[in-house]
Amino acid sequence: MSKTAVIIIDMINTYDHPDADRLVPSVAKAIPALSRLLERARAAGAPVIYVNDNFGEWRSHHGELLDKALAGPHADLVEPLRPDDTSLFVVKARHSIFYETPLTYLLAQEGIDHVVLCGQVTEQCVLYSALDAHIRHLQVTVPEDAVAHIHADLADAALRMMRRNMDANICKAADVTF
Amino acid sequence: MSKTAVIIIDMINTYDHPDADRLVPSVAKAIPALSRLLERARAAGAPVIYVNDNFGEWRSHHGELLDKALAGPHADLVEPLRPDDTSLFVVKARHSIFYETPLTYLLAQEGIDHVVLCGQVTEQCVLYSALDAHIRHLQVTVPEDAVAHIHADLADAALRMMRRNMDANICKAADVTF
Amino acid sequence: MSKTAVIIIDMINTYDHPDADRLVPSVAKAIPALSRLLERARAAGAPVIYVNDNFGEWRSHHGELLDKALAGPHADLVEPLRPDDTSLFVVKARHSIFYETPLTYLLAQEGIDHVVLCGQVTEQCVLYSALDAHIRHLQVTVPEDAVAHIHADLADAALRMMRRNMDANICKAADVTF
Amino acid sequence: MSKTAVIIIDMINTYDHPDADRLVPSVAKAIPALSRLLERARAAGAPVIYVNDNFGEWRSHHGELLDKALAGPHADLVEPLRPDDTSLFVVKARHSIFYETPLTYLLAQEGIDHVVLCGQVTEQCVLYSALDAHIRHLQVTVPEDAVAHIHADLADAALRMMRRNMDANICKAADVTF
Repeated sequence: MSKTAVIIIDMINTYDHPDADRLVPSVAKAIPALSRLLERARAAGAPVIYVNDNFGEWRSHHGELLDKALAGPHADLVEPLRPDDTSLFVVKARHSIFYETPLTYLLAQEGIDHVVLCGQVTEQCVLYSALDAHIRHLQVTVPEDAVAHIHADLADAALRMMRRNMDANICKAADVTF
Repeated sequence: MSKTAVIIIDMINTYDHPDADRLVPSVAKAIPALSRLLERARAAGAPVIYVNDNFGEWRSHHGELLDKALAGPHADLVEPLRPDDTSLFVVKARHSIFYETPLTYLLAQEGIDHVVLCGQVTEQCVLYSALDAHIRHLQVTVPEDAVAHIHADLADAALRMMRRNMDANICKAADVTF
Repeated sequence: MSKTAVIIIDMINTYDHPDADRLVPSVAKAIPALSRLLERARAAGAPVIYVNDNFGEWRSHHGELLDKALAGPHADLVEPLRPDDTSLFVVKARHSIFYETPLTYLLAQEGIDHVVLCGQVTEQCVLYSALDAHIRHLQVTVPEDAVAHIHADLADAALRMMRRNMDANICKAADVTF
Repeated sequence: MSKTAVIIIDMINTYDHPDADRLVPSVAKAIPALSRLLERARAAGAPVIYVNDNFGEWRSHHGELLDKALAGPHADLVEPLRPDDTSLFVVKARHSIFYETPLTYLLAQEGIDHVVLCGQVTEQCVLYSALDAHIRHLQVTVPEDAVAHIHADLADAALRMMRRNMDANICKAADVTF
């Protein structure tokens, strides 16, 4: 029996970094599918894990990251994905959701062997996290309408790499089952 | 030039676990030396890093862990060590402060090559963390009056192991310089 | 169903390091129980994994380490524990058998969840490896007559730490079953 | 002062895996530039590190992997890159050269902060290793004529990802200086 978790990557965000201009429209487009997926996961009782960069803020916790993002000019991209009382959190310092984080341990403790990777950026953190999940023998699904990119051509190549070389299931968010 | 950080291990605590009865008196005894060391570190501008177990609470952040500890029956053991606005935080899931945490990365980023390990438990997390620091070629100091134990005989052996086999400097808290 | 592997730590050794004088008699005493355990593991088809320091020799492989040890003055301590065609090998660079080695991966791939730690040094690599196994939720057995020490008092404390704080089964080699 | 190492990925190979048909011509094309780079690195005294898959052979060492590759039908792709007495070796079990290997430790011990990634496969292990080097704050160079691919379109995207998102220097092998 496989146990599935939805992983929401770097969506608690103030969007004030370089490349944000290119990223924001893609995020806006991914929000509807992602928020519906989130709703279905919660209804099914599937774990939802927010893995988010701490932006070098070793003093902050995820509550503060969320407050800051919700107070910023792009609150509309954060509000629909607000964590609830059942959400789990892992803070990361670098690109991959696994690098120097307790995620491997958390997944093993919860018996999760299938991760649905959502969020941003398709050709960066999502790609890197898919690799690190595959290398750990986890099953990977990437709903292509629930991830956001900066460069469309690299995102397209990233999805092909994940499908071909990381055994990832590339699908629509509506096709993910719990 | 060496750069020193004070690391406070597992002191944000509700003390409701097994062995707490044996541990609490030792913690009470370590608090004065530890709080003076903390004060001196802050005055000197040395980084103070709280590394704390999350007690399996993947929903909580360090602010919540602190609130819970300060609301408990042993608030007097937590209050004198309260983090301030300059404190850094790393949450751990298992015994060693390095296991599946971003601490190695944080120390490298901050240029810290010398760690002063304080807190609890001498013969458990402090010993394990000293080993993991030594294995990473960090210089280790353990102020023996600022660590707390459950079993005095094992704590004594742990201090001897750290001195002999992990090149740790075992000293009094007052002898740590910044 | 638990699957057990025997792990032989640092026994491919030239014994030309500091403390060798204190270590050699303890190794000599552990050899009979250890070689009988090795024989029984092989007869039962249980995996035997040699995890050995590379002594900073990033050019050497385990065949060369073995040749060098067998050509040295303490070949008698190495000969009875000679690997055979079914032996597995992991080379380590630092104290713990898990630190920056593929051992976690190898054990998971082989479905091994119980490790019998043998070899040297009880109060150093054996202790550290027991901790790193316990932290990874592996079951740990340490046959006290098949491990060797430098300092008897620290070895005794190490065995008590492993039993009390790492849930290790401390027993005689003859009591290990496969 | 930067210190540079050449890293030769997965070139000790029997080429009997799926996709070998697509890979072999690209490897053949990369050999001349790669063997000249290797020669120049040796002449300059720069460390050359062979990082190679063990193909699940936990019994083998790199000497045996080499013998097997040199006895196979594609010995001509291995012979020009033969290790010499100054070569260093790291064995890996999975795609990235850093995953569960001692490479991070070896590079730190040798003071190497710049890696020149050569070998195969551009859009797989080379890409993944570039990411894992970048995430560790190592400087990365990839000589595009000294790496080999299976799928040309993905290799091209991989090189663009490395340049844009991993700060990698993509150049010709002849432009690498020691």
